[in-house]
Amino acid sequence: MTTPMRQMMANAIRFLSADAVEAAGSGHPGLPMGAADIATVLFTRFLTFDPTRPDWPDRDRFVFSAGHGSMLLYSLLYLLGYRDIGIDEIKRFRQIGSKTAGHPEYGHAAGIETTTGPLGQGAGNAVGMALAERILNAKFGDDVVDHYTYALVGDGCLMEGISQEAIALAGHLKLSKLIFLWDDNGITIDGKVSLADSTNQRERFEACGWQALACDGHDHEAIAAAIETAKASDRPTLIAAKTTIGFGAPNKSGTEKAHGSPLGAEELAAAREALDWPHPPFDIPSEILDQWRLAGLRSSVRRKAWEARFAEVDAETRGEFERRMRGDLPSGFTQALHRFKRRMNEERPKIATRKASEMALEEINAIVSETIGGSADLTGSNNTRTSQTLPITAGDYTGRYVHYGIREHGMAAAMNGMALHGGMIPYSGTFLAFSDYCRPALRLAALMGIRVVHVMTHDSIGLGEDGPTHQPVEQLAALRAIPNMLVFRPADAVETAECWQLALQNRAAPSILALSRQALPTLRLDEHDENRSARGAYEIDPASGEARVTIYATGSEVEIAIEARRQLERAGIPTRVVSVPSFELFRRQTAEYRRALIGDTSIKIAVEAGIRQGWDELIGREGHFVGMNGFGASGPASELYRHFGITAEAVVAAVMERLAGEDAAARA
Amino acid sequence: MTTPMRQMMANAIRFLSADAVEAAGSGHPGLPMGAADIATVLFTRFLTFDPTRPDWPDRDRFVFSAGHGSMLLYSLLYLLGYRDIGIDEIKRFRQIGSKTAGHPEYGHAAGIETTTGPLGQGAGNAVGMALAERILNAKFGDDVVDHYTYALVGDGCLMEGISQEAIALAGHLKLSKLIFLWDDNGITIDGKVSLADSTNQRERFEACGWQALACDGHDHEAIAAAIETAKASDRPTLIAAKTTIGFGAPNKSGTEKAHGSPLGAEELAAAREALDWPHPPFDIPSEILDQWRLAGLRSSVRRKAWEARFAEVDAETRGEFERRMRGDLPSGFTQALHRFKRRMNEERPKIATRKASEMALEEINAIVSETIGGSADLTGSNNTRTSQTLPITAGDYTGRYVHYGIREHGMAAAMNGMALHGGMIPYSGTFLAFSDYCRPALRLAALMGIRVVHVMTHDSIGLGEDGPTHQPVEQLAALRAIPNMLVFRPADAVETAECWQLALQNRAAPSILALSRQALPTLRLDEHDENRSARGAYEIDPASGEARVTIYATGSEVEIAIEARRQLERAGIPTRVVSVPSFELFRRQTAEYRRALIGDTSIKIAVEAGIRQGWDELIGREGHFVGMNGFGASGPASELYRHFGITAEAVVAAVMERLAGEDAAARA
Repeated sequence: MTTPMRQMMANAIRFLSADAVEAAGSGHPGLPMGAADIATVLFTRFLTFDPTRPDWPDRDRFVFSAGHGSMLLYSLLYLLGYRDIGIDEIKRFRQIGSKTAGHPEYGHAAGIETTTGPLGQGAGNAVGMALAERILNAKFGDDVVDHYTYALVGDGCLMEGISQEAIALAGHLKLSKLIFLWDDNGITIDGKVSLADSTNQRERFEACGWQALACDGHDHEAIAAAIETAKASDRPTLIAAKTTIGFGAPNKSGTEKAHGSPLGAEELAAAREALDWPHPPFDIPSEILDQWRLAGLRSSVRRKAWEARFAEVDAETRGEFERRMRGDLPSGFTQALHRFKRRMNEERPKIATRKASEMALEEINAIVSETIGGSADLTGSNNTRTSQTLPITAGDYTGRYVHYGIREHGMAAAMNGMALHGGMIPYSGTFLAFSDYCRPALRLAALMGIRVVHVMTHDSIGLGEDGPTHQPVEQLAALRAIPNMLVFRPADAVETAECWQLALQNRAAPSILALSRQALPTLRLDEHDENRSARGAYEIDPASGEARVTIYATGSEVEIAIEARRQLERAGIPTRVVSVPSFELFRRQTAEYRRALIGDTSIKIAVEAGIRQGWDELIGREGHFVGMNGFGASGPASELYRHFGITAEAVVAAVMERLAGEDAAARA
Repeated sequence: MTTPMRQMMANAIRFLSADAVEAAGSGHPGLPMGAADIATVLFTRFLTFDPTRPDWPDRDRFVFSAGHGSMLLYSLLYLLGYRDIGIDEIKRFRQIGSKTAGHPEYGHAAGIETTTGPLGQGAGNAVGMALAERILNAKFGDDVVDHYTYALVGDGCLMEGISQEAIALAGHLKLSKLIFLWDDNGITIDGKVSLADSTNQRERFEACGWQALACDGHDHEAIAAAIETAKASDRPTLIAAKTTIGFGAPNKSGTEKAHGSPLGAEELAAAREALDWPHPPFDIPSEILDQWRLAGLRSSVRRKAWEARFAEVDAETRGEFERRMRGDLPSGFTQALHRFKRRMNEERPKIATRKASEMALEEINAIVSETIGGSADLTGSNNTRTSQTLPITAGDYTGRYVHYGIREHGMAAAMNGMALHGGMIPYSGTFLAFSDYCRPALRLAALMGIRVVHVMTHDSIGLGEDGPTHQPVEQLAALRAIPNMLVFRPADAVETAECWQLALQNRAAPSILALSRQALPTLRLDEHDENRSARGAYEIDPASGEARVTIYATGSEVEIAIEARRQLERAGIPTRVVSVPSFELFRRQTAEYRRALIGDTSIKIAVEAGIRQGWDELIGREGHFVGMNGFGASGPASELYRHFGITAEAVVAAVMERLAGEDAAARA
């Protein structure tokens, strides 16, 4: 292949991208035009993939962290012959229902490995994918899993704090098959990077245990040489590829004007002139398209070789690998959890739900070999480690536990990458209050609909003396607000096991298990295998007669609700208690179920050691809420519950007051 | 002073801390014992402060970023004679109502410069304080403002991504009077730092433009020499002070066992033995206490010298400095906003509220000289820059605008530090969707009750083609969930000016202005100066007769509500429209106002291009909600509104359906 053809191949990306942005009337031409050479070299000379089998498990992963330049990726997918992206999709860039959204959306088209756009997230995803590759390699061997992870990152990705968490983790774990291609164009939205940053990125990466290289991002041979060096390293590698944003646009290139708006007809025409590209929009000359398609075809050779190798692997290993990549849970999973629930029924332990979670995990991890645990440096507090999960260390990836360090955000983004890679179910832990630190990554998990499980303990003022900075108050509401996020708050050991089961069975949603620090009695004494938490809300304790009062509660406050019921029943007031382990699953029930469960008692009270927001859905505006009105305080947990009036006595008093009101109204 | 006395002074910190943790039955003895020498050197030989005037404006700032070691700070404040922390408060460590909470809480006691605990936040605050110092120095001169900012940071602070954003910004801006003292003890909760991190922190800081030093953190002279070198630098400085966690505890020091639990009676006794500290708990021998108190007294000399200098400054400058430090707004502020509102009334522009915000800011910044603007690299999109706000650059701090870079989290934490320092009102900008990135810092602003203003634009699917990653859906609910957070969503230029006024007048709460990307008509045509948004919710458009329908809306959807009302009124259905710029302020109104405003129309409809959560507070469970049920999509804004059914027609259709239901019920 001659150099001019490679240039023309890169120019095909440039004009597909710039023309699509122009047609859409919005978008980012600068990055695709600047990084077209990097992408051309990577995809035609290095990346192992197959457009005809985009989900082939041992493909290299390409993460497009600088997602605003999405047309670069769409152009590549079209040029290489990925079936989901025809020229019509390129023309429909940024239109409702198209596969070519403003930012790459996972699930819209094969070849989009992750949703990006919020900066730095792709960097974190790539670390997770590279880690997943090593873990699966350690389990299944080089013949089955042995590939690279490439991420194209921009200046914004590197400025975001999440990038530091990601690269420090990757450097620590020596993920040598991870390669960052930094589109080092020196331009951000506000202008030159030098307006806001003077970091020596190469030295920074080296300080974090990376190899750092630099090259001219428009010199194909220099790019290729850098990638070769990167592939040979025993450390992850940053390649700082110096580029000109909007390369080819004679007046706007090298400036922020090329970043985030169409070039305009005039500048686009001038770019056609400058790059000698006389072809009309969306029309790629067949000799250039043929070369791209050939690169796509060539790539399938490696896939076929892998299939031949894989066919030689023993049947059991093959079956296990395929099961894990499909995301199916192993047989025996449900039975193990039933056994566990029955045992809890018998033993009726009084334990924190974080402890119950550890006990349930001990059973789960024994059967579900694909769980990969971890914690953001709170292992002993989150109870996320079990006897099966030995630590993963640099160079030895046979373990099943990641010490993520004090990096909640990087952890959550890496977990997303692990889930996206496939073959594993990552779960991890931090305090519920620190869900705020990883919220952008949690949101992306929900948007992508992927299975990651976050154990979030110390889920209320019940954590006690650490005080308001560590006491979640609004976090339950804030997490329930995220669409497609399963927020579970189990009340006892039985519900904890049920919520774990639901978290693992729901393939298309991330889950959060909000767990108590403090010990809670076993409340679920019914001895059957039905997963009652699957309803989202259910009657855990019925009224003795026709109910006059319903108390709704979650987690540690269900105990309070049941105690309040006891006192009310003793006073002759029939009272039912509803446990609400998951608002999201409750909303998915039939209207009949929901209506019946909410019921029609005139008095409705909710008890949760968080804010009221969201609870009116169950108790209505007129309902009474026993919970928090503001931030918590530092003090012993039991004193805090009294201090903030979250007690059975407060519930009973509220009921009595309302009953008195009703009686007075009836007499009047 | 002999070395033994200094050691004894440090040991006083160690035992006050360990004994208080022991008495509380929980807490973190390891850090205070490990960092006692650093603190002793800093407070007795370097820090400029005055226990008798803890709020003296030109004091050095000491930020205790590793807040879990709070007893170190409380011990210092007690030993130095700060009036708020007597020995009784030390004994009441971690009890409800004490000033000595589990983590340092701003406002509990003078001398606590910021609330810390969530790791890395203090590092960000310190950068903001150091920046504030330089900005005020540039304005008021060396005689008025000229001090250092010290932050004690731990391994956790440095692992959190926010630290990268903070140090990169500080390095870029060459904040040479900022000094980080890193308690380099190599231990975190899970065990050795080496379990999770291999970063060469000194090289990392150097890559970010810092000077990096190292010293033995138990050698007083070495610590002092490092601080001297740091003070002389033209760059910010990291001092890696190698320490032993739990120094003095013979069996637990140097391990995670000393980190987060009481030492236990036996180990504490052994530590007394090892450090030759025979004194009973909370009993500091008078010769040691006297030395500490003397250090406190000595420090007041510098305060008095400053007061003498300050008295020489011209009266106008002095008055302005004092006004700014008090946090009072300048006279003329209210009038300027009234003028602006009247102008909007006359001109009735159709503009985006982000544009209206820029116009209001142009008036505000002309009068309120203490506003310091900025953006996380979205200046042109957030419209946060006005003619008065020239950029602040390394070495020239006369400007009023910070290019924060793509660092939402570091930005918000720095803004907190600027507000805490005093003398300025920081405001800044990003997209509303990226409020998630800075949420931990937003929460701390709310918890501390400080005045920072976040302009968050592109506040709905109205941002259009960038798609779901950039479209906030749950963010309004999630931000409203934070206690003491003022979330404003103005409907037009008039409300935007009113919300800016409220944000600036509310000294004890942070504000978020959620602003539209798309143009909106001027809806508020009443010509009076009352700030109607101050009610949180008010009737913007009354019904023509006795109302049958109420439509509640915020921001860009008020236009839709008013159009729906027009159609309904035309159909003979009296309809009122309520604008809800702030849920939080509405909640602060009297019960009468709230009841009357919500009203008793049987049909209540809310319109907001976000999720329903929280709206039942106004419309009840039976109310109808026109908004989002899940994530957004990529496409032109107007098409998205139709696609998701957020239109006047959808509102009218919902009303008609309900009216038909009511009529049928009435006939039956």
